[in-house]
Amino acid sequence: MNAPDMTSFVAWRAAQQALVESALSAWVPQDTPAGLGDAMRYAVLDGGKRLRPLLALATCEAVQGHRPAAMRAACALELIHAYSLVHDDMPCMDDDVLRRGKPTVHVKFGQAQALLAGDALQALAFEILVPGDPEMPDALGARLCRLLARAAGADGMAGGQAVDLASVGLALGLAELEAMHRRKTGALLQASVTMGAATGQPSEAAQAALAEFGACLGLAFQVVDDILDVTADSATLGKTAGKDAAADKPTFVSLMGLAPAQQYADTVLCRAHDALDRSGLAEPGTLHALADWVGQRSS
Amino acid sequence: MNAPDMTSFVAWRAAQQALVESALSAWVPQDTPAGLGDAMRYAVLDGGKRLRPLLALATCEAVQGHRPAAMRAACALELIHAYSLVHDDMPCMDDDVLRRGKPTVHVKFGQAQALLAGDALQALAFEILVPGDPEMPDALGARLCRLLARAAGADGMAGGQAVDLASVGLALGLAELEAMHRRKTGALLQASVTMGAATGQPSEAAQAALAEFGACLGLAFQVVDDILDVTADSATLGKTAGKDAAADKPTFVSLMGLAPAQQYADTVLCRAHDALDRSGLAEPGTLHALADWVGQRSS
Repeated sequence: MNAPDMTSFVAWRAAQQALVESALSAWVPQDTPAGLGDAMRYAVLDGGKRLRPLLALATCEAVQGHRPAAMRAACALELIHAYSLVHDDMPCMDDDVLRRGKPTVHVKFGQAQALLAGDALQALAFEILVPGDPEMPDALGARLCRLLARAAGADGMAGGQAVDLASVGLALGLAELEAMHRRKTGALLQASVTMGAATGQPSEAAQAALAEFGACLGLAFQVVDDILDVTADSATLGKTAGKDAAADKPTFVSLMGLAPAQQYADTVLCRAHDALDRSGLAEPGTLHALADWVGQRSS
Repeated sequence: MNAPDMTSFVAWRAAQQALVESALSAWVPQDTPAGLGDAMRYAVLDGGKRLRPLLALATCEAVQGHRPAAMRAACALELIHAYSLVHDDMPCMDDDVLRRGKPTVHVKFGQAQALLAGDALQALAFEILVPGDPEMPDALGARLCRLLARAAGADGMAGGQAVDLASVGLALGLAELEAMHRRKTGALLQASVTMGAATGQPSEAAQAALAEFGACLGLAFQVVDDILDVTADSATLGKTAGKDAAADKPTFVSLMGLAPAQQYADTVLCRAHDALDRSGLAEPGTLHALADWVGQRSS
Protein backbone atom coordinates (compact mmCIF):
# COMPACT_ATOMS: atom_id res chain seq x y z
CA MET A 1 0.00 0.00 0.00
CA ASN A 2 1.10 3.57 -0.57
CA ALA A 3 1.14 6.26 2.09
CA PRO A 4 -2.27 7.89 1.48
CA ASP A 5 -3.95 4.46 1.58
CA MET A 6 -2.30 3.71 4.89
CA THR A 7 -3.47 7.01 6.35
CA SER A 8 -7.03 6.40 5.29
CA PHE A 9 -6.87 2.80 6.57
CA VAL A 10 -5.72 3.93 10.00
CA ALA A 11 -8.56 6.44 10.13
CA TRP A 12 -11.08 3.83 8.94
CA ARG A 13 -9.82 1.35 11.51
CA ALA A 14 -10.08 3.81 14.40
CA ALA A 15 -13.57 4.86 13.36
CA GLN A 16 -14.81 1.27 13.05
CA GLN A 17 -13.22 0.26 16.35
CA ALA A 18 -15.10 3.09 18.06
CA LEU A 19 -18.37 2.03 16.45
CA VAL A 20 -17.82 -1.59 17.47
CA GLU A 21 -17.03 -0.54 21.04
CA SER A 22 -20.19 1.50 21.18
CA ALA A 23 -22.34 -1.31 19.76
CA LEU A 24 -20.83 -3.86 22.15
CA SER A 25 -21.42 -1.53 25.07
CA ALA A 26 -25.07 -1.24 24.07
CA TRP A 27 -25.56 -4.99 23.65
CA VAL A 28 -23.65 -6.45 26.59
CA PRO A 29 -25.99 -6.11 29.57
CA GLN A 30 -25.18 -3.90 32.52
CA ASP A 31 -27.96 -4.54 34.98
CA THR A 32 -27.84 -8.33 35.22
CA PRO A 33 -28.19 -9.46 38.83
CA ALA A 34 -25.35 -10.91 40.90
CA GLY A 35 -22.65 -9.10 38.95
CA LEU A 36 -22.74 -11.32 35.87
CA GLY A 37 -23.11 -8.33 33.56
CA ASP A 38 -20.08 -6.68 35.17
CA ALA A 39 -17.94 -9.73 34.42
CA MET A 40 -19.26 -9.89 30.85
CA ARG A 41 -18.53 -6.21 30.23
CA TYR A 42 -15.07 -6.51 31.77
CA ALA A 43 -14.33 -9.39 29.39
CA VAL A 44 -15.52 -7.59 26.28
CA LEU A 45 -15.19 -3.81 26.53
CA ASP A 46 -12.23 -1.50 26.33
CA GLY A 47 -9.63 -3.81 24.89
CA GLY A 48 -8.49 -5.87 21.98
CA LYS A 49 -7.65 -5.11 18.37
CA ARG A 50 -11.17 -6.02 17.22
CA LEU A 51 -9.64 -7.83 14.24
CA ARG A 52 -12.65 -10.08 13.72
CA PRO A 53 -15.16 -7.20 13.71
CA LEU A 54 -12.91 -5.20 11.37
CA LEU A 55 -12.72 -8.14 8.96
CA ALA A 56 -16.50 -8.55 8.96
CA LEU A 57 -17.10 -4.83 8.42
CA ALA A 58 -14.45 -4.50 5.71
CA THR A 59 -15.83 -7.54 3.87
CA CYS A 60 -19.33 -6.09 4.10
CA GLU A 61 -18.04 -2.89 2.52
CA ALA A 62 -16.21 -4.84 -0.18
CA VAL A 63 -19.41 -6.71 -1.15
CA GLN A 64 -21.64 -3.67 -0.55
CA GLY A 65 -23.54 -5.69 2.03
CA HIS A 66 -26.14 -4.89 4.67
CA ARG A 67 -24.34 -2.69 7.18
CA PRO A 68 -26.58 -3.17 10.25
CA ALA A 69 -26.31 -6.93 9.81
CA ALA A 70 -22.53 -6.65 9.47
CA MET A 71 -22.28 -4.69 12.72
CA ARG A 72 -24.27 -7.42 14.46
CA ALA A 73 -22.03 -10.06 12.89
CA ALA A 74 -18.94 -8.07 13.91
CA CYS A 75 -20.05 -7.90 17.53
CA ALA A 76 -21.21 -11.53 17.63
CA LEU A 77 -17.75 -12.60 16.43
CA GLU A 78 -16.09 -10.50 19.10
CA LEU A 79 -18.38 -11.94 21.79
CA ILE A 80 -17.42 -15.48 20.78
CA HIS A 81 -13.75 -14.49 20.75
CA ALA A 82 -14.06 -12.81 24.17
CA TYR A 83 -15.84 -15.81 25.73
CA SER A 84 -13.15 -18.14 24.39
CA LEU A 85 -10.43 -16.01 26.00
CA VAL A 86 -12.25 -16.01 29.35
CA HIS A 87 -12.56 -19.80 29.37
CA ASP A 88 -9.10 -20.35 27.88
CA ASP A 89 -7.49 -18.31 30.66
CA MET A 90 -9.09 -20.35 33.45
CA PRO A 91 -6.86 -22.45 35.72
CA CYS A 92 -8.09 -25.75 34.23
CA MET A 93 -7.07 -24.53 30.75
CA ASP A 94 -4.10 -22.18 30.17
CA ASP A 95 -4.20 -20.75 33.72
CA ASP A 96 -3.29 -17.21 32.82
CA VAL A 97 -3.58 -14.07 34.92
CA LEU A 98 -3.01 -11.31 32.34
CA ARG A 99 -5.14 -10.45 29.29
CA ARG A 100 -5.38 -7.23 27.33
CA GLY A 101 -3.13 -5.70 29.99
CA LYS A 102 -5.58 -6.44 32.81
CA PRO A 103 -6.11 -9.29 35.30
CA THR A 104 -8.04 -12.09 33.64
CA VAL A 105 -11.76 -12.43 34.37
CA HIS A 106 -11.41 -15.31 36.82
CA VAL A 107 -8.70 -13.44 38.73
CA LYS A 108 -10.97 -10.42 39.00
CA PHE A 109 -14.38 -12.09 39.50
CA GLY A 110 -13.67 -15.69 40.54
CA GLN A 111 -13.76 -18.88 38.48
CA ALA A 112 -17.49 -19.57 38.77
CA GLN A 113 -18.40 -16.11 37.55
CA ALA A 114 -15.84 -16.37 34.73
CA LEU A 115 -17.33 -19.68 33.61
CA LEU A 116 -20.85 -18.22 33.62
CA ALA A 117 -19.79 -14.97 31.97
CA GLY A 118 -18.22 -16.95 29.12
CA ASP A 119 -21.35 -19.06 28.77
CA ALA A 120 -23.59 -15.99 28.74
CA LEU A 121 -21.36 -14.23 26.18
CA GLN A 122 -21.71 -17.17 23.81
CA ALA A 123 -25.51 -17.09 24.13
CA LEU A 124 -25.47 -13.31 23.60
CA ALA A 125 -23.49 -13.71 20.37
CA PHE A 126 -26.33 -15.71 18.85
CA GLU A 127 -28.99 -13.52 20.43
CA ILE A 128 -27.79 -10.32 18.77
CA LEU A 129 -27.84 -12.00 15.34
CA VAL A 130 -31.59 -12.64 15.54
CA PRO A 131 -33.06 -9.59 17.27
CA GLY A 132 -36.48 -9.91 15.66
CA ASP A 133 -36.54 -6.31 14.50
CA PRO A 134 -37.06 -4.99 10.98
CA GLU A 135 -33.45 -3.83 10.47
CA MET A 136 -32.25 -7.44 10.61
CA PRO A 137 -34.10 -9.98 8.42
CA ASP A 138 -34.52 -13.34 10.14
CA ALA A 139 -33.33 -15.28 7.09
CA LEU A 140 -30.02 -13.37 7.10
CA GLY A 141 -29.75 -13.77 10.87
CA ALA A 142 -30.15 -17.52 10.46
CA ARG A 143 -27.38 -17.65 7.82
CA LEU A 144 -25.07 -15.73 10.14
CA CYS A 145 -25.96 -17.98 13.11
CA ARG A 146 -25.12 -21.01 10.97
CA LEU A 147 -21.69 -19.68 9.99
CA LEU A 148 -20.91 -18.58 13.55
CA ALA A 149 -22.07 -21.79 15.24
CA ARG A 150 -20.01 -23.95 12.89
CA ALA A 151 -16.92 -21.80 13.43
CA ALA A 152 -17.31 -21.79 17.22
CA GLY A 153 -18.16 -25.43 17.84
CA ALA A 154 -16.55 -28.85 17.80
CA ASP A 155 -15.55 -28.59 14.14
CA GLY A 156 -14.09 -25.14 14.73
CA MET A 157 -12.72 -23.21 17.67
CA ALA A 158 -13.72 -25.54 20.53
CA GLY A 159 -12.41 -28.56 18.62
CA GLY A 160 -9.15 -26.78 17.91
CA GLN A 161 -8.71 -25.97 21.57
CA ALA A 162 -9.22 -29.63 22.44
CA VAL A 163 -6.48 -30.57 19.95
CA ASP A 164 -4.29 -27.82 21.40
CA LEU A 165 -4.67 -29.27 24.91
CA ALA A 166 -3.92 -32.75 23.65
CA SER A 167 -0.81 -31.54 21.80
CA VAL A 168 1.20 -30.38 24.80
CA GLY A 169 4.59 -32.04 24.69
CA LEU A 170 4.03 -33.51 21.23
CA ALA A 171 6.14 -32.73 18.14
CA LEU A 172 3.48 -32.00 15.54
CA GLY A 173 4.32 -31.82 11.84
CA LEU A 174 3.43 -28.78 9.75
CA ALA A 175 0.21 -30.35 8.44
CA GLU A 176 -0.97 -31.25 11.95
CA LEU A 177 -0.06 -27.84 13.34
CA GLU A 178 -1.93 -26.13 10.50
CA ALA A 179 -4.95 -28.42 11.00
CA MET A 180 -5.08 -27.51 14.68
CA HIS A 181 -4.88 -23.78 14.04
CA ARG A 182 -7.33 -23.93 11.14
CA ARG A 183 -9.87 -24.81 13.83
CA LYS A 184 -8.56 -23.04 16.91
CA THR A 185 -8.06 -19.52 15.56
CA GLY A 186 -8.58 -19.93 11.82
CA ALA A 187 -12.25 -20.92 11.86
CA LEU A 188 -13.44 -17.76 13.60
CA LEU A 189 -11.17 -15.48 11.53
CA GLN A 190 -12.40 -17.11 8.33
CA ALA A 191 -15.99 -16.79 9.59
CA SER A 192 -15.36 -13.08 10.08
CA VAL A 193 -14.84 -12.85 6.34
CA THR A 194 -17.60 -15.27 5.29
CA MET A 195 -20.14 -13.65 7.64
CA GLY A 196 -19.22 -10.23 6.26
CA ALA A 197 -19.65 -11.66 2.75
CA ALA A 198 -23.03 -13.17 3.68
CA THR A 199 -24.40 -9.67 4.34
CA GLY A 200 -24.14 -9.02 0.58
CA GLN A 201 -24.61 -10.96 -2.64
CA PRO A 202 -21.07 -11.67 -3.90
CA SER A 203 -20.63 -14.04 -6.85
CA GLU A 204 -19.71 -17.64 -6.13
CA ALA A 205 -16.19 -16.93 -7.36
CA ALA A 206 -15.90 -13.96 -5.03
CA GLN A 207 -17.23 -16.04 -2.13
CA ALA A 208 -14.62 -18.73 -2.78
CA ALA A 209 -11.84 -16.17 -3.06
CA LEU A 210 -12.93 -14.50 0.17
CA ALA A 211 -13.05 -17.84 1.97
CA GLU A 212 -9.49 -18.53 0.77
CA PHE A 213 -8.46 -15.04 1.89
CA GLY A 214 -9.96 -15.68 5.34
CA ALA A 215 -8.23 -19.05 5.66
CA CYS A 216 -4.81 -17.61 4.73
CA LEU A 217 -5.30 -14.61 6.98
CA GLY A 218 -6.19 -16.92 9.89
CA LEU A 219 -3.09 -19.01 9.35
CA ALA A 220 -0.84 -15.97 9.03
CA PHE A 221 -2.33 -14.53 12.20
CA GLN A 222 -1.40 -17.67 14.12
CA VAL A 223 2.15 -17.83 12.75
CA VAL A 224 2.66 -14.18 13.75
CA ASP A 225 1.14 -14.99 17.15
CA ASP A 226 3.71 -17.72 17.67
CA ILE A 227 6.51 -15.34 16.62
CA LEU A 228 5.31 -12.63 19.01
CA ASP A 229 5.10 -15.13 21.84
CA VAL A 230 8.88 -15.48 21.47
CA THR A 231 9.94 -11.97 20.44
CA ALA A 232 7.64 -9.59 22.32
CA ASP A 233 7.38 -8.85 26.02
CA SER A 234 4.25 -9.20 28.17
CA ALA A 235 3.76 -5.44 28.51
CA THR A 236 3.62 -5.02 24.73
CA LEU A 237 1.41 -8.06 24.19
CA GLY A 238 -0.94 -7.29 27.08
CA LYS A 239 -0.80 -11.00 27.86
CA THR A 240 1.87 -13.32 29.20
CA ALA A 241 4.75 -13.72 26.71
CA GLY A 242 6.72 -16.93 26.33
CA LYS A 243 3.71 -19.01 27.33
CA ASP A 244 3.85 -21.58 24.56
CA ALA A 245 7.44 -22.58 25.23
CA ALA A 246 6.79 -22.65 28.97
CA ALA A 247 3.79 -24.93 28.38
CA ASP A 248 5.76 -27.07 25.91
CA LYS A 249 3.21 -26.42 23.17
CA PRO A 250 4.12 -27.02 19.54
CA THR A 251 4.32 -23.75 17.57
CA PHE A 252 5.42 -22.66 14.11
CA VAL A 253 8.56 -21.25 15.72
CA SER A 254 9.39 -24.44 17.62
CA LEU A 255 8.73 -26.42 14.44
CA MET A 256 10.69 -24.36 11.89
CA GLY A 257 12.69 -21.71 13.77
CA LEU A 258 12.15 -17.95 14.00
CA ALA A 259 13.36 -16.67 10.61
CA PRO A 260 11.67 -19.43 8.57
CA ALA A 261 8.44 -18.86 10.54
CA GLN A 262 8.60 -15.18 9.54
CA GLN A 263 9.14 -16.17 5.91
CA TYR A 264 6.23 -18.58 6.17
CA ALA A 265 3.97 -15.83 7.53
CA ASP A 266 4.96 -13.65 4.58
CA THR A 267 4.26 -16.47 2.12
CA VAL A 268 0.82 -17.13 3.56
CA LEU A 269 -0.01 -13.41 3.54
CA CYS A 270 0.97 -13.29 -0.14
CA ARG A 271 -1.57 -16.04 -0.76
CA ALA A 272 -4.16 -13.96 1.10
CA HIS A 273 -3.46 -10.94 -1.12
CA ASP A 274 -3.54 -13.16 -4.23
CA ALA A 275 -6.94 -14.52 -3.26
CA LEU A 276 -8.26 -10.98 -2.93
CA ASP A 277 -6.81 -10.08 -6.33
CA ARG A 278 -8.73 -13.00 -7.82
CA SER A 279 -11.97 -12.09 -6.05
CA GLY A 280 -13.09 -9.60 -8.67
CA LEU A 281 -14.34 -7.29 -5.91
CA ALA A 282 -14.35 -3.63 -6.91
CA GLU A 283 -12.82 -2.28 -3.70
CA PRO A 284 -10.78 -4.80 -1.77
CA GLY A 285 -8.34 -2.14 -0.50
CA THR A 286 -9.36 -2.27 3.16
CA LEU A 287 -9.08 -6.06 3.22
CA HIS A 288 -5.57 -5.81 1.73
CA ALA A 289 -4.72 -3.31 4.44
CA LEU A 290 -6.07 -5.58 7.16
CA ALA A 291 -3.88 -8.41 5.87
CA ASP A 292 -0.86 -6.08 6.00
CA TRP A 293 -1.83 -5.12 9.55
CA VAL A 294 -1.95 -8.77 10.60
CA GLY A 295 1.55 -9.26 9.20
CA GLN A 296 3.01 -6.17 10.80
CA ARG A 297 1.32 -6.24 14.20
CA SER A 298 3.51 -6.02 17.27
CA SER A 299 0.91 -7.15 19.84
CA MET B 1 -56.22 -37.94 33.85
CA ASN B 2 -58.01 -41.26 33.62
CA ALA B 3 -56.26 -44.59 33.22
CA PRO B 4 -56.39 -45.01 29.42
CA ASP B 5 -54.94 -41.52 28.99
CA MET B 6 -52.09 -42.39 31.31
CA THR B 7 -51.33 -45.57 29.36
CA SER B 8 -51.22 -43.71 26.08
CA PHE B 9 -49.12 -40.92 27.63
CA VAL B 10 -46.53 -43.42 28.89
CA ALA B 11 -46.35 -44.97 25.43
CA TRP B 12 -46.11 -41.53 23.77
CA ARG B 13 -43.38 -40.49 26.19
CA ALA B 14 -41.30 -43.62 25.60
CA ALA B 15 -41.64 -43.28 21.83
CA GLN B 16 -40.65 -39.61 21.84
CA GLN B 17 -37.72 -40.24 24.20
CA ALA B 18 -36.40 -42.85 21.78
CA LEU B 19 -36.77 -40.48 18.83
CA VAL B 20 -34.98 -37.70 20.73
CA GLU B 21 -32.18 -40.07 21.69
CA SER B 22 -31.77 -41.11 18.09
CA ALA B 23 -31.76 -37.52 16.82
CA LEU B 24 -29.26 -36.42 19.45
CA SER B 25 -27.02 -39.35 18.59
CA ALA B 26 -27.09 -38.30 14.93
CA TRP B 27 -26.34 -34.64 15.67
CA VAL B 28 -23.72 -34.83 18.41
CA PRO B 29 -20.43 -35.51 16.61
CA GLN B 30 -18.50 -38.70 17.10
CA ASP B 31 -15.32 -38.19 15.14
CA THR B 32 -14.12 -34.90 16.57
CA PRO B 33 -10.37 -34.99 17.20
CA ALA B 34 -8.80 -35.16 20.65
CA GLY B 35 -11.80 -36.86 22.22
CA LEU B 36 -14.03 -33.78 22.40
CA GLY B 37 -16.88 -35.62 20.68
CA ASP B 38 -16.63 -38.46 23.20
CA ALA B 39 -17.04 -36.03 26.08
CA MET B 40 -19.96 -34.33 24.32
CA ARG B 41 -21.73 -37.64 23.66
CA TYR B 42 -21.11 -38.81 27.23
CA ALA B 43 -22.73 -35.62 28.51
CA VAL B 44 -25.79 -35.88 26.30
CA LEU B 45 -26.67 -39.45 25.37
CA ASP B 46 -28.24 -42.28 27.32
CA GLY B 47 -29.64 -40.41 30.26
CA GLY B 48 -32.08 -37.87 31.54
CA LYS B 49 -35.85 -37.57 31.48
CA ARG B 50 -35.76 -35.41 28.34
CA LEU B 51 -38.44 -33.19 29.89
CA ARG B 52 -37.52 -30.17 27.77
CA PRO B 53 -37.66 -32.10 24.47
CA LEU B 54 -40.96 -33.71 25.50
CA LEU B 55 -42.45 -30.29 26.28
CA ALA B 56 -41.36 -28.91 22.92
CA LEU B 57 -42.70 -31.91 21.01
CA ALA B 58 -45.99 -32.02 22.92
CA THR B 59 -46.52 -28.29 22.37
CA CYS B 60 -45.79 -28.73 18.67
CA GLU B 61 -48.47 -31.44 18.54
CA ALA B 62 -50.90 -29.25 20.45
CA VAL B 63 -50.47 -26.39 17.95
CA GLN B 64 -50.17 -28.74 14.96
CA GLY B 65 -46.73 -27.29 14.30
CA HIS B 66 -43.80 -28.19 12.04
CA ARG B 67 -42.56 -31.52 13.38
CA PRO B 68 -38.99 -31.51 11.95
CA ALA B 69 -38.48 -28.03 13.41
CA ALA B 70 -39.84 -29.18 16.76
CA MET B 71 -37.41 -32.12 16.86
CA ARG B 72 -34.53 -29.71 16.21
CA ALA B 73 -35.87 -27.39 18.93
CA ALA B 74 -36.26 -30.35 21.28
CA CYS B 75 -32.66 -31.44 20.79
CA ALA B 76 -31.31 -27.88 20.95
CA LEU B 77 -33.02 -27.43 24.31
CA GLU B 78 -31.54 -30.68 25.59
CA LEU B 79 -28.06 -29.67 24.38
CA ILE B 80 -28.29 -26.39 26.30
CA HIS B 81 -29.54 -28.26 29.36
CA ALA B 82 -26.73 -30.83 29.07
CA TYR B 83 -24.02 -28.19 28.68
CA SER B 84 -25.33 -26.35 31.74
CA LEU B 85 -25.11 -29.54 33.80
CA VAL B 86 -21.52 -30.18 32.65
CA HIS B 87 -20.41 -26.69 33.64
CA ASP B 88 -22.55 -26.62 36.80
CA ASP B 89 -20.93 -29.83 38.06
CA MET B 90 -17.38 -28.50 37.71
CA PRO B 91 -15.28 -27.95 40.84
CA CYS B 92 -15.46 -24.16 40.57
CA MET B 93 -19.28 -24.36 40.55
CA ASP B 94 -21.21 -27.08 42.43
CA ASP B 95 -18.29 -29.53 42.44
CA ASP B 96 -20.32 -32.69 41.93
CA VAL B 97 -19.13 -36.14 40.94
CA LEU B 98 -22.41 -37.92 40.12
CA ARG B 99 -24.92 -37.07 37.37
CA ARG B 100 -27.56 -39.27 35.76
CA GLY B 101 -26.08 -42.16 37.76
CA LYS B 102 -22.61 -41.76 36.19
CA PRO B 103 -19.41 -39.91 37.05
CA THR B 104 -19.70 -36.28 35.94
CA VAL B 105 -17.96 -35.24 32.72
CA HIS B 106 -15.00 -33.54 34.40
CA VAL B 107 -14.43 -36.60 36.59
CA LYS B 108 -14.41 -38.82 33.52
CA PHE B 109 -12.60 -36.56 31.00
CA GLY B 110 -10.86 -33.85 33.03
CA GLN B 111 -11.89 -30.27 33.71
CA ALA B 112 -10.47 -28.74 30.52
CA GLN B 113 -12.30 -31.21 28.29
CA ALA B 114 -15.50 -30.71 30.32
CA LEU B 115 -15.27 -26.95 29.87
CA LEU B 116 -14.74 -27.32 26.11
CA ALA B 117 -17.42 -29.99 25.73
CA GLY B 118 -19.94 -27.66 27.39
CA ASP B 119 -18.89 -24.79 25.16
CA ALA B 120 -19.17 -26.95 22.04
CA LEU B 121 -22.59 -28.29 23.09
CA GLN B 122 -23.90 -24.74 23.37
CA ALA B 123 -22.66 -23.90 19.88
CA LEU B 124 -24.17 -27.14 18.56
CA ALA B 125 -27.57 -26.23 20.02
CA PHE B 126 -27.70 -23.15 17.81
CA GLU B 127 -26.14 -24.94 14.85
CA ILE B 128 -28.87 -27.59 14.62
CA LEU B 129 -31.58 -24.91 14.59
CA VAL B 130 -30.25 -23.39 11.35
CA PRO B 131 -29.08 -26.34 9.24
CA GLY B 132 -29.62 -24.58 5.92
CA ASP B 133 -31.65 -27.42 4.47
CA PRO B 134 -35.13 -27.27 2.98
CA GLU B 135 -36.84 -29.12 5.86
CA MET B 136 -36.06 -26.23 8.20
CA PRO B 137 -36.93 -22.72 6.98
CA ASP B 138 -34.31 -20.14 8.01
CA ALA B 139 -36.93 -17.69 9.26
CA LEU B 140 -38.30 -20.31 11.68
CA GLY B 141 -34.75 -21.29 12.69
CA ALA B 142 -34.02 -17.66 13.51
CA ARG B 143 -37.15 -17.39 15.70
CA LEU B 144 -36.12 -20.53 17.57
CA CYS B 145 -32.53 -19.26 17.99
CA ARG B 146 -33.91 -16.04 19.43
CA LEU B 147 -36.06 -17.83 22.01
CA LEU B 148 -33.26 -20.22 22.94
CA ALA B 149 -30.53 -17.58 23.22
CA ARG B 150 -32.66 -15.39 25.47
CA ALA B 151 -33.54 -18.36 27.71
CA ALA B 152 -29.93 -19.54 27.95
CA GLY B 153 -28.15 -16.23 28.49
CA ALA B 154 -27.69 -13.55 31.13
CA ASP B 155 -31.41 -12.83 31.39
CA GLY B 156 -32.16 -16.54 31.65
CA MET B 157 -30.31 -19.64 32.76
CA ALA B 158 -26.78 -18.23 33.09
CA GLY B 159 -28.06 -15.21 35.00
CA GLY B 160 -30.05 -17.46 37.31
CA GLN B 161 -26.98 -19.53 38.03
CA ALA B 162 -25.07 -16.39 38.94
CA VAL B 163 -27.83 -15.45 41.38
CA ASP B 164 -27.79 -18.99 42.74
CA LEU B 165 -24.06 -18.76 43.44
CA ALA B 166 -24.47 -15.39 45.10
CA SER B 167 -27.32 -16.70 47.27
CA VAL B 168 -25.37 -19.30 49.23
CA GLY B 169 -25.90 -18.67 52.94
CA LEU B 170 -28.59 -16.03 52.34
CA ALA B 171 -32.19 -16.25 53.54
CA LEU B 172 -34.12 -15.31 50.39
CA GLY B 173 -37.81 -14.46 50.53
CA LEU B 174 -40.33 -16.27 48.35
CA ALA B 175 -40.30 -13.56 45.68
CA GLU B 176 -36.49 -13.60 45.46
CA LEU B 177 -36.37 -17.40 45.37
CA GLU B 178 -38.96 -17.47 42.59
CA ALA B 179 -37.12 -14.78 40.65
CA MET B 180 -33.90 -16.80 40.81
CA HIS B 181 -35.55 -20.00 39.63
CA ARG B 182 -37.58 -18.23 36.96
CA ARG B 183 -34.19 -17.67 35.33
CA LYS B 184 -32.15 -20.65 36.44
CA THR B 185 -34.48 -23.50 35.48
CA GLY B 186 -37.70 -21.73 34.54
CA ALA B 187 -36.44 -19.87 31.49
CA LEU B 188 -35.38 -22.99 29.59
CA LEU B 189 -38.50 -24.95 30.59
CA GLN B 190 -40.69 -22.07 29.50
CA ALA B 191 -38.68 -21.82 26.27
CA SER B 192 -39.40 -25.51 25.68
CA VAL B 193 -43.07 -24.61 25.46
CA THR B 194 -42.68 -21.33 23.57
CA MET B 195 -40.29 -22.89 21.04
CA GLY B 196 -42.71 -25.76 20.51
CA ALA B 197 -45.47 -23.18 20.02
CA ALA B 198 -43.32 -21.22 17.56
CA THR B 199 -43.28 -24.23 15.21
CA GLY B 200 -47.02 -23.63 14.61
CA GLN B 201 -49.37 -20.66 14.32
CA PRO B 202 -51.26 -20.53 17.63
CA SER B 203 -53.48 -17.52 18.35
CA GLU B 204 -52.07 -14.77 20.53
CA ALA B 205 -54.31 -15.92 23.37
CA ALA B 206 -53.02 -19.49 23.03
CA GLN B 207 -49.43 -18.22 22.97
CA ALA B 208 -49.99 -16.26 26.17
CA ALA B 209 -51.66 -19.24 27.86
CA LEU B 210 -48.83 -21.55 26.80
CA ALA B 211 -46.23 -19.09 28.11
CA GLU B 212 -48.07 -19.03 31.45
CA PHE B 213 -48.25 -22.83 31.41
CA GLY B 214 -44.50 -23.01 30.81
CA ALA B 215 -43.73 -20.54 33.59
CA CYS B 216 -45.88 -22.44 36.12
CA LEU B 217 -44.46 -25.77 35.03
CA GLY B 218 -40.91 -24.44 35.42
CA LEU B 219 -41.64 -23.19 38.94
CA ALA B 220 -43.35 -26.44 39.95
CA PHE B 221 -40.40 -28.41 38.58
CA GLN B 222 -38.03 -26.48 40.84
CA VAL B 223 -40.18 -26.83 43.96
CA VAL B 224 -40.36 -30.59 43.36
CA ASP B 225 -36.60 -30.60 42.78
CA ASP B 226 -36.07 -29.00 46.17
CA ILE B 227 -38.39 -31.54 47.78
CA LEU B 228 -36.59 -34.48 46.14
CA ASP B 229 -33.23 -33.11 47.25
CA VAL B 230 -34.46 -33.68 50.82
CA THR B 231 -36.64 -36.80 50.46
CA ALA B 232 -34.93 -38.96 47.81
CA ASP B 233 -31.61 -40.79 47.92
CA SER B 234 -28.72 -40.36 45.48
CA ALA B 235 -29.31 -43.75 43.82
CA THR B 236 -32.89 -42.81 42.93
CA LEU B 237 -31.99 -39.28 41.82
CA GLY B 238 -28.90 -40.33 39.85
CA LYS B 239 -27.23 -37.28 41.38
CA THR B 240 -26.05 -36.34 44.84
CA ALA B 241 -29.00 -35.92 47.23
CA GLY B 242 -29.00 -33.43 50.10
CA LYS B 243 -26.73 -31.05 48.16
CA ASP B 244 -28.66 -27.86 48.70
CA ALA B 245 -28.70 -28.15 52.48
CA ALA B 246 -25.03 -29.17 52.50
CA ALA B 247 -24.18 -26.11 50.40
CA ASP B 248 -26.42 -23.88 52.54
CA LYS B 249 -28.46 -22.87 49.51
CA PRO B 250 -31.91 -21.34 49.98
CA THR B 251 -34.68 -23.68 48.73
CA PHE B 252 -38.45 -23.79 48.82
CA VAL B 253 -38.15 -26.46 51.53
CA SER B 254 -35.75 -24.44 53.68
CA LEU B 255 -37.99 -21.40 53.23
CA MET B 256 -41.41 -22.91 53.93
CA GLY B 257 -40.92 -26.50 55.20
CA LEU B 258 -41.58 -29.81 53.47
CA ALA B 259 -45.38 -30.15 53.61
CA PRO B 260 -46.08 -26.52 52.65
CA ALA B 261 -43.59 -26.85 49.80
CA GLN B 262 -45.55 -29.87 48.52
CA GLN B 263 -48.77 -27.88 48.77
CA TYR B 264 -47.14 -25.02 46.93
CA ALA B 265 -46.03 -27.35 44.12
CA ASP B 266 -49.62 -28.58 43.83
CA THR B 267 -50.96 -25.03 43.73
CA VAL B 268 -48.54 -23.98 41.00
CA LEU B 269 -49.35 -27.10 38.97
CA CYS B 270 -53.04 -26.25 39.23
CA ARG B 271 -52.22 -22.87 37.71
CA ALA B 272 -50.39 -24.68 34.91
CA HIS B 273 -53.44 -26.85 34.19
CA ASP B 274 -55.71 -23.78 34.36
CA ALA B 275 -53.54 -21.97 31.83
CA LEU B 276 -53.86 -24.93 29.45
CA ASP B 277 -57.62 -24.98 29.93
CA ARG B 278 -57.73 -21.32 28.91
CA SER B 279 -55.50 -21.86 25.88
CA GLY B 280 -58.31 -22.92 23.59
CA LEU B 281 -56.07 -25.62 22.10
CA ALA B 282 -57.95 -28.59 20.68
CA GLU B 283 -55.74 -31.29 22.17
CA PRO B 284 -53.79 -30.21 25.22
CA GLY B 285 -53.97 -33.69 26.80
CA THR B 286 -50.28 -34.54 26.48
CA LEU B 287 -49.27 -31.22 28.03
CA HIS B 288 -51.64 -31.86 30.96
CA ALA B 289 -50.02 -35.29 31.34
CA LEU B 290 -46.52 -33.77 31.29
CA ALA B 291 -47.53 -31.38 34.06
CA ASP B 292 -48.82 -34.33 36.11
CA TRP B 293 -45.55 -36.14 35.45
CA VAL B 294 -43.54 -33.17 36.75
CA GLY B 295 -45.63 -33.19 39.92
CA GLN B 296 -45.35 -36.92 40.49
CA ARG B 297 -41.73 -37.53 39.52
CA SER B 298 -39.51 -39.36 41.98
CA SER B 299 -36.14 -38.51 40.37
